[in-house]
Amino acid sequence: MNLDPPSPISLAQALIRCASVTPEEGGALSFLDDLLSGVGFQVERPVFSEAGTPDIENLYARIGTGSPCLLFAGHTDVVPTGEPSAWSHGPFSGEVADGVLYGRGAVDMKGGIACKLAATLAFLRERPDFAGSIAFLITGDEEGPAINGTVKLLAWARERGERFDHCLLGEPTNPSRLGEMIKIGRRGSLTGAITVHGRQGHVAYPHRAENPIPGLLRLCSALIAEPLDGGTAHFDASNLEFTTVDVGNPATNVIPANAKAVFNIRFNDDWSAHTLGAEIRRRLEEAAGNAVRFSLDLQPSNSPAFLTEPDRFVDLVSRAITAETGLTPKLSTTGGTSDARFIKDACPVIEFGLVGETMHQVDECVAVADLERLTTIYARVLEAYFPKGGS
Amino acid sequence: MNLDPPSPISLAQALIRCASVTPEEGGALSFLDDLLSGVGFQVERPVFSEAGTPDIENLYARIGTGSPCLLFAGHTDVVPTGEPSAWSHGPFSGEVADGVLYGRGAVDMKGGIACKLAATLAFLRERPDFAGSIAFLITGDEEGPAINGTVKLLAWARERGERFDHCLLGEPTNPSRLGEMIKIGRRGSLTGAITVHGRQGHVAYPHRAENPIPGLLRLCSALIAEPLDGGTAHFDASNLEFTTVDVGNPATNVIPANAKAVFNIRFNDDWSAHTLGAEIRRRLEEAAGNAVRFSLDLQPSNSPAFLTEPDRFVDLVSRAITAETGLTPKLSTTGGTSDARFIKDACPVIEFGLVGETMHQVDECVAVADLERLTTIYARVLEAYFPKGGS
Repeated sequence: MNLDPPSPISLAQALIRCASVTPEEGGALSFLDDLLSGVGFQVERPVFSEAGTPDIENLYARIGTGSPCLLFAGHTDVVPTGEPSAWSHGPFSGEVADGVLYGRGAVDMKGGIACKLAATLAFLRERPDFAGSIAFLITGDEEGPAINGTVKLLAWARERGERFDHCLLGEPTNPSRLGEMIKIGRRGSLTGAITVHGRQGHVAYPHRAENPIPGLLRLCSALIAEPLDGGTAHFDASNLEFTTVDVGNPATNVIPANAKAVFNIRFNDDWSAHTLGAEIRRRLEEAAGNAVRFSLDLQPSNSPAFLTEPDRFVDLVSRAITAETGLTPKLSTTGGTSDARFIKDACPVIEFGLVGETMHQVDECVAVADLERLTTIYARVLEAYFPKGGS
Repeated sequence: MNLDPPSPISLAQALIRCASVTPEEGGALSFLDDLLSGVGFQVERPVFSEAGTPDIENLYARIGTGSPCLLFAGHTDVVPTGEPSAWSHGPFSGEVADGVLYGRGAVDMKGGIACKLAATLAFLRERPDFAGSIAFLITGDEEGPAINGTVKLLAWARERGERFDHCLLGEPTNPSRLGEMIKIGRRGSLTGAITVHGRQGHVAYPHRAENPIPGLLRLCSALIAEPLDGGTAHFDASNLEFTTVDVGNPATNVIPANAKAVFNIRFNDDWSAHTLGAEIRRRLEEAAGNAVRFSLDLQPSNSPAFLTEPDRFVDLVSRAITAETGLTPKLSTTGGTSDARFIKDACPVIEFGLVGETMHQVDECVAVADLERLTTIYARVLEAYFPKGGS
């Protein structure tokens, strides 16, 4: 007897009920392991470690050995729930009310994984002898330090000789409506700290001291006086935000010795972290002249800007979305960083998932109808990616 | 048998050996009490209290009931020593080495009090029936919160019907050489905090947030773009120093909700705290326009700018200084605040004491020769203030 494949709703509920707040596996990967092993995937569960960080469980599964290989990437870990009593439904309950499934990870991204699973199970039932391979690369460390997750898992796979042709990452990419937006790249991220050095003293004797705060005002103002760029073909303009300014001087009669500002820049493909850091330094040096003594401390960046140029794979996914939703998805590079910045070194990667509105919030939730439609979209992608009679 | 009056050096040593770090009396006031009572002063030891602050001992002593009444004001409390092992001589040892007396309070201002005592004892021995009064108003709370000290002591004296004609406060007024500088007034002090209000959000989605830091940069820059004034006849230009800027946001991917800067202004007699606060608010509102939401929190100020107009008393003290040192003292209003800002409401007050270079530092010290010369200067002041055959 051939049972129906599980629905994306029941799969999402099962995953949400695993309390897999980073770094806890919470049973989520074991659930995937059982399910994928059961339909013929070869499943591996590498655990990665690094001093000072928690050990992290990961999962790699593949069915087929032929080409092309389509990679479904994602993560089962979730951010903390905040105060559980603030939720209208328990954050790990997976309850459905009025056509909406509630729970931490509903959209980011247990829901997306459930849709991929449901689509894959349905596809394999229809096309057990498809030509090609499907792989799942699932980490438990995307919301945490991201040290023992996707980066190491990709290196581990590369060493085993695993090769991928395209990756579809299931992060929630749609701002408010399923089908609106594919992410075809991401901006880079660069963080730096500016410290202006002065000399401490009494406010009543400023000539014996050197207040660093006016110098910091001058440098910070100069840094944002002109835009970094005007945007590029597929990217918005790069944007700098000051995230904090701190002196920490409790004494109102004391001129402090140092003043520090921290900034974060989300930058487009006009820049590398290196060229951008040089531009920041140039602006600061020009503003400082001989009048302000400062140091610039740029954090090492593992978030370059990258773009997956629109091509046949992007078209294929777009058409699947349009067929199901009637919308033509915008090809976007907005938003934060994701593990796509690591995957892009293994193969072209694009991102399409659920509606992100409630991600990381209390009462994270997803419309049941969206889970069903996203499953259909992924199923259309599989059908188009592995055409009947294909190589 | 009539013993010689004690030397200012032995008096300063005795006071330094009392460990009277605020709020501890440390035996210093009792020492003064015994000494002044012994030569005929009527001595009172009022203790003042206020919730949330330590009880403070104070001393008021007066000899004579006639006019004029010359008030010697000062304090016996001292700032903490820091690490005692960093001192070349124990901070409460009162040791003399190579003609220099070491110890906490040597110049600020146990040394100055010792000189006043020595001068007064010598004067009373010569002129036991002088016409007029001499009063000592000594607090133990000048270096601390200054709540249970001079302010309450003056109110207490006023209620008892005590009236003073002139006050000489013995703070260390000379920058580097005894005789250089009389303080005939002090700048006022006004402290305020500017908070710019924004909206928290993710740095990757700045359009959904409102970063308060650029607004704070704008307001702070506007505040110091133009001088507050150009100085007045007896005062330097008013000066604003930012003392701290704080956001306290540890997350480099989060735009903070608020940003705060604190400033302190030392202002001249062009301003009251009220008119100055209004000017600050005007500058901030002009810079903010409709673009920056801010609040300004001005601390209540008990430090107005004040001036004791140069007159016969200032001349009298100047001549005494010149006669002893050969220098013509500069009539200055520079430096920090002092208890003179309270005394000025009771009578004209000027300040002249030792050389302040080492005050509040490790190895605070005073030249023995300076103690002797300051004693002579105070003695000349007494002789000139109470001329023989005077009323």
